[in-house]
Amino acid sequence: MAKGAGMIRPDMATMLAFVATDAAVSQRCLQAMLRDLADASFNRITVDGDTSTNDALILAATGVAGGPVIDDASSEGAHALKALMVPLFRELAQAIIRDGEGATRFVTVHVTGGRGEAECLKVAYTVAESPLVKTALFAGDPNWGRLAMAVGRAGVEGLDPARVQIWFDDVRVMTDGLMDPGYTEEAGARVLGQAELTIRIDLGRGDAASEVWTSDFSYEYVRINAEYRT
Amino acid sequence: MAKGAGMIRPDMATMLAFVATDAAVSQRCLQAMLRDLADASFNRITVDGDTSTNDALILAATGVAGGPVIDDASSEGAHALKALMVPLFRELAQAIIRDGEGATRFVTVHVTGGRGEAECLKVAYTVAESPLVKTALFAGDPNWGRLAMAVGRAGVEGLDPARVQIWFDDVRVMTDGLMDPGYTEEAGARVLGQAELTIRIDLGRGDAASEVWTSDFSYEYVRINAEYRT
Repeated sequence: MAKGAGMIRPDMATMLAFVATDAAVSQRCLQAMLRDLADASFNRITVDGDTSTNDALILAATGVAGGPVIDDASSEGAHALKALMVPLFRELAQAIIRDGEGATRFVTVHVTGGRGEAECLKVAYTVAESPLVKTALFAGDPNWGRLAMAVGRAGVEGLDPARVQIWFDDVRVMTDGLMDPGYTEEAGARVLGQAELTIRIDLGRGDAASEVWTSDFSYEYVRINAEYRT
Repeated sequence: MAKGAGMIRPDMATMLAFVATDAAVSQRCLQAMLRDLADASFNRITVDGDTSTNDALILAATGVAGGPVIDDASSEGAHALKALMVPLFRELAQAIIRDGEGATRFVTVHVTGGRGEAECLKVAYTVAESPLVKTALFAGDPNWGRLAMAVGRAGVEGLDPARVQIWFDDVRVMTDGLMDPGYTEEAGARVLGQAELTIRIDLGRGDAASEVWTSDFSYEYVRINAEYRT
């Protein structure tokens, strides 16, 4: 179960989510697993970058399934259980984005080729939270100049624009910092017209990767947040 | 002269501004002055946090006024000239915000009581660029909870919420982290209904201060940036 939709960029502070398993797991081990699960799901979604003060993600293990108690987060049993739960956590987290204020699109921003996860996330969040990128997503406008702008202003030290690649789903838009010679605006517009799409950005400087999930900025977003009292 | 309005948070990258003086000043000295002047004006405005790739601010000195060439940026002459130019630079920079995409309000975010200018600016930009704050500004809604949220998520290490004060112009909203006992929503709504207002935030931990100038997020902002091709 998950409830959310306003002030969404959980940094675990109004979003509420509850997951229960009938496995037998110790509190200590559940806490360690939950941290990893949150990082792979709820801590990777953003509607507007604004955090709230009371998000909660609770994982309970009733133990009614029986069997020995899983107590070590690095054990095979803990890994197996966590692997089973990752898709569920992601589904719940992504459901919050699909239900985001005024959301008309569900967008995955996947960043590869970074020197570490931190810089991949920096780029992913800057793209996902850029008002110009988000209004282009609302319009279904394949404005890759705005994407390149957001990548550039993310603040990755020493990033070489000539090594950056960008895709809309499988459509290659930017190759080595320039518009891909095979790119056509029709191909881009086709992907941007979809309700769900992935923006992939390769930074060309390492092996790290990460992704965040976001929505667009619509008239409805402004209406909900400007006229919520009327 | 200044031209701007899209992708506005100059970090000196589409905004163009030109200032000329008939004073006699050396190129080296002008460059030093220009850096200070930009930091006190154009580098303190933001519409949406999105930077562009080719802002320019040019300061020319023709020397037709005659007199000895000012060559030392720390000289009395340079200081006097700079002091004369600050209001002009601010007027031009603020004119870009007043003319911002869909802007209906001109808002000064003034942060005091910081341990350094950097943390004051961090808080000021987080408030000025928060979509929830900006939609409240559009609505004329004195939603100080959103302000407190943005202050909190700005990432100032060790900030004590119980020492934070917030004002809308002269109306005190938050005292020591709680709603001011004398605050009324009518008083807040009166200020928020104005075309121009100042949000003042005191962090209660030092003597540093800084400010940025921004606009609100309106339907018109979304329209301009989503439908600019149609």
